[in-house]
Amino acid sequence: DLPLLLIAGPCQLESTDHAQMIAGRMAEICAAHGAQFVFKGSFDKANRTSVGGKRGLGIDGGLKVMQSVKDSIGCPVLTDIHTADQCAPVAAVCDVLQIPAFLCRQTDLLIAAGETGAVINVKKGQFLAPWDMPNVVAKIESTGNRRILVTDRGTSFGYNTLVADMRSLPTMARMGYPVVMDATHSVQQPGGQGGSSGGQREFAPVMARAAVSLGIAAVFIETHEDPDIAPSDGPNMIPLAQMDALVQSLMDFDALAKADPIRV
Amino acid sequence: DLPLLLIAGPCQLESTDHAQMIAGRMAEICAAHGAQFVFKGSFDKANRTSVGGKRGLGIDGGLKVMQSVKDSIGCPVLTDIHTADQCAPVAAVCDVLQIPAFLCRQTDLLIAAGETGAVINVKKGQFLAPWDMPNVVAKIESTGNRRILVTDRGTSFGYNTLVADMRSLPTMARMGYPVVMDATHSVQQPGGQGGSSGGQREFAPVMARAAVSLGIAAVFIETHEDPDIAPSDGPNMIPLAQMDALVQSLMDFDALAKADPIRV
Amino acid sequence: DLPLLLIAGPCQLESTDHAQMIAGRMAEICAAHGAQFVFKGSFDKANRTSVGGKRGLGIDGGLKVMQSVKDSIGCPVLTDIHTADQCAPVAAVCDVLQIPAFLCRQTDLLIAAGETGAVINVKKGQFLAPWDMPNVVAKIESTGNRRILVTDRGTSFGYNTLVADMRSLPTMARMGYPVVMDATHSVQQPGGQGGSSGGQREFAPVMARAAVSLGIAAVFIETHEDPDIAPSDGPNMIPLAQMDALVQSLMDFDALAKADPIRV
Amino acid sequence: DLPLLLIAGPCQLESTDHAQMIAGRMAEICAAHGAQFVFKGSFDKANRTSVGGKRGLGIDGGLKVMQSVKDSIGCPVLTDIHTADQCAPVAAVCDVLQIPAFLCRQTDLLIAAGETGAVINVKKGQFLAPWDMPNVVAKIESTGNRRILVTDRGTSFGYNTLVADMRSLPTMARMGYPVVMDATHSVQQPGGQGGSSGGQREFAPVMARAAVSLGIAAVFIETHEDPDIAPSDGPNMIPLAQMDALVQSLMDFDALAKADPIRV
Repeated sequence: DLPLLLIAGPCQLESTDHAQMIAGRMAEICAAHGAQFVFKGSFDKANRTSVGGKRGLGIDGGLKVMQSVKDSIGCPVLTDIHTADQCAPVAAVCDVLQIPAFLCRQTDLLIAAGETGAVINVKKGQFLAPWDMPNVVAKIESTGNRRILVTDRGTSFGYNTLVADMRSLPTMARMGYPVVMDATHSVQQPGGQGGSSGGQREFAPVMARAAVSLGIAAVFIETHEDPDIAPSDGPNMIPLAQMDALVQSLMDFDALAKADPIRV
Repeated sequence: DLPLLLIAGPCQLESTDHAQMIAGRMAEICAAHGAQFVFKGSFDKANRTSVGGKRGLGIDGGLKVMQSVKDSIGCPVLTDIHTADQCAPVAAVCDVLQIPAFLCRQTDLLIAAGETGAVINVKKGQFLAPWDMPNVVAKIESTGNRRILVTDRGTSFGYNTLVADMRSLPTMARMGYPVVMDATHSVQQPGGQGGSSGGQREFAPVMARAAVSLGIAAVFIETHEDPDIAPSDGPNMIPLAQMDALVQSLMDFDALAKADPIRV
Repeated sequence: DLPLLLIAGPCQLESTDHAQMIAGRMAEICAAHGAQFVFKGSFDKANRTSVGGKRGLGIDGGLKVMQSVKDSIGCPVLTDIHTADQCAPVAAVCDVLQIPAFLCRQTDLLIAAGETGAVINVKKGQFLAPWDMPNVVAKIESTGNRRILVTDRGTSFGYNTLVADMRSLPTMARMGYPVVMDATHSVQQPGGQGGSSGGQREFAPVMARAAVSLGIAAVFIETHEDPDIAPSDGPNMIPLAQMDALVQSLMDFDALAKADPIRV
Repeated sequence: DLPLLLIAGPCQLESTDHAQMIAGRMAEICAAHGAQFVFKGSFDKANRTSVGGKRGLGIDGGLKVMQSVKDSIGCPVLTDIHTADQCAPVAAVCDVLQIPAFLCRQTDLLIAAGETGAVINVKKGQFLAPWDMPNVVAKIESTGNRRILVTDRGTSFGYNTLVADMRSLPTMARMGYPVVMDATHSVQQPGGQGGSSGGQREFAPVMARAAVSLGIAAVFIETHEDPDIAPSDGPNMIPLAQMDALVQSLMDFDALAKADPIRV
């Protein structure tokens, strides 16, 4: 088993400088602790809680930022796509296309993404059981693409709350694809602040550690140098200044978990 | 308050003859009992559980069927749309555009739908609280369109199960728009049959009656002359042969509820 | 089918005068609208959220109050019991023994209650599915007692929230015993005020009407002349001054539902 | 921080020989790996799903078995109590009194248990949020007893399913008392086999490892040499033959977690 992969970055791409700063710092941290790294950033927040929420740089601006990160930092990059026609242009720049959780049942999007040949990271919908994911993955596989990651970002639990069921990770691992724990979105409180989502940032490291101890392939973490001013998802992001200690800690648990695999 | 509206039809549009048969029968039933009627049918099942599930007639074939229903039966027609570019052509034929529950946070879709000026029926996501819906509705209102219906089709409750919280109906009614109870999807068991969704057809009339007794504007019911062979959602559809008695019964409760409004 | 039964009263028995006042007023209201009536009051709140919450009059004081209500008002009376040894003395005065939801799996309590020969009203635990209740009822039936009522008071739905699943009522009705909807506890917010439970009093009539429209046997409602000063459960009780209009309205729906039974 | 405590044993006490065999084997395993050990066994299953489920040896028989385990193995012993009058006689033999989850709000039971001066292990009700537990603990503390453990055994999640929310563990740890993860009951499927509860035994080690990685004080595990013939809870017990490897693995994660504490 390979060492842990960190998929990390800001929620929204904000500017070239900002993206390079975060990607550069995260690449350093991951290199220092032996973790793999993929930079994450969104060019469009297509499903903001409110119509007034900031949407982001757009596809053209976002892809330029992503290209600059690849050129300057040399790491793979991931972004999320929302419509079938975005898949090909995004795959021309990005290494990993991500299917948002709300859209994980949209057949045309899954197929268009799969057909690019890029790696596809598909998030389990908050409304799906982990054992429903083989149907989702089969839509991508129908294109011949088997470069697939599956991510848990929490499951609906009453109103305005998600719960991360640890059984989900080994259940989804049965499909044979790398499993990712989204440590920051699984502590989101959807709609919990009226016009935007709340979050419990303090529990993101809890989710990450518990999941890594089970021997998963990757952790997804949104991070920002000042989450309280981030244009989206601030309440559940981890401050960039805490990432070094967190990655070091997660790598210790990863080494132990990879040496002592748990299978169900 | 107007008498109850029935939004009814098959899950998928199957053919012109089939659509006219169901629309014609439902129009007769509704006329006989004093209910309003809108014919519902989907041209594309864009989020089937499995990649092998039947998708439907497609947009061109579906709109031809819808036009034929309007011409022959004379009732308004509703269909669901999945991408922003479908909105204008669909609104050229259909009276009501429906936003699927999974897509109720996709800002571009809501705005493109709103901009057509058609009536928009937006379903509450299974992952949303009823008090989150003003944010969804505001995206449509941002286009100046205030011809809006809001529908409850159930909320995630553990795995593979939905629950219909009756508090949702008066809560959503506070927005001032007509509220619809989707009696057949709220008894769906998502993913409950492995490669397709299960359902508890026997409870759809329970949901419809409870909701109508609260004085809602409309009930959404999928119906088919033989649900067990329907291409999708058979397990939760009501047989067409039972619709006459059901509508009669619902109209009795509707009359009583409209005469004795409940407000929260 | 008999007309609707109202099981109503304060959460806690407070004094003889107070109990007679509420029982007298409710008996008048029920008589005026053709409803059956059973007076409800607790002598001990054995599971308060906090150790400092008021417990009540105790068994001796409570039974004296109950006897005075029977003597003065002439209605049957119901109270809840918490230990096996309370069952016999309580049954010497009260017509109905109620098993609290948290205790609905405690075999000794169910059997001791059943053995008194009194009517037993057992509440479905917030942690149970409606189809789990036959196991609960069988414990009472094992004593030969078949004078049983089964009550839904809501099901756990995330944290600090209950949901009332309308499917529960016809599901439990399959056992052949009268089904009761607890309209005030199903809108409780357990622990929702830190040291005590919150509630959504405004939705209790919603729950009552939806349930009555399904043709159930009885509605359970806690009421008080001034809920905001009631020693327990104030946030979800219905003011006594609203009960006349509510009972009248429920009887209209009851008549319609009993004339048009719904079966699943 | 002390090394991990294992609270382990069969669900029901079956006989002196059986209890000594399991306690002896578990004591050996824990000693070999540096874990603390408390033997667990129930003398009465007071809340079986069905009236026909085996109840156990009873209080007198059970306490004799517990005394024999203490005498022969020398380990502390834990059992669960169900009524206030059981507390004193049980505390005369047992080191730890356990409050069952369903009963965690019963004030008299909590106080009677606390007054014995024994250690009290209180399980969070399936219907409670972790932040509701300070109210429960305060009832025990009102007796002056501060020898308290708090256990998570899962939370209701839809019907017939529990979910273990990892946030619960650090949330409950804020009270300052040792936190226990019940790895076998949190994978129970209440009522999932009709007349008895089902379970997902294969996920118990998953829950244990994830929780231990968070630095908790103790893990609660029911074990049996042949779970499929155990008189209760077989579907979620871990076979005794797997305990040596499991404890060894958990101690590795415990050492890492205790050296790198996570605080929220």
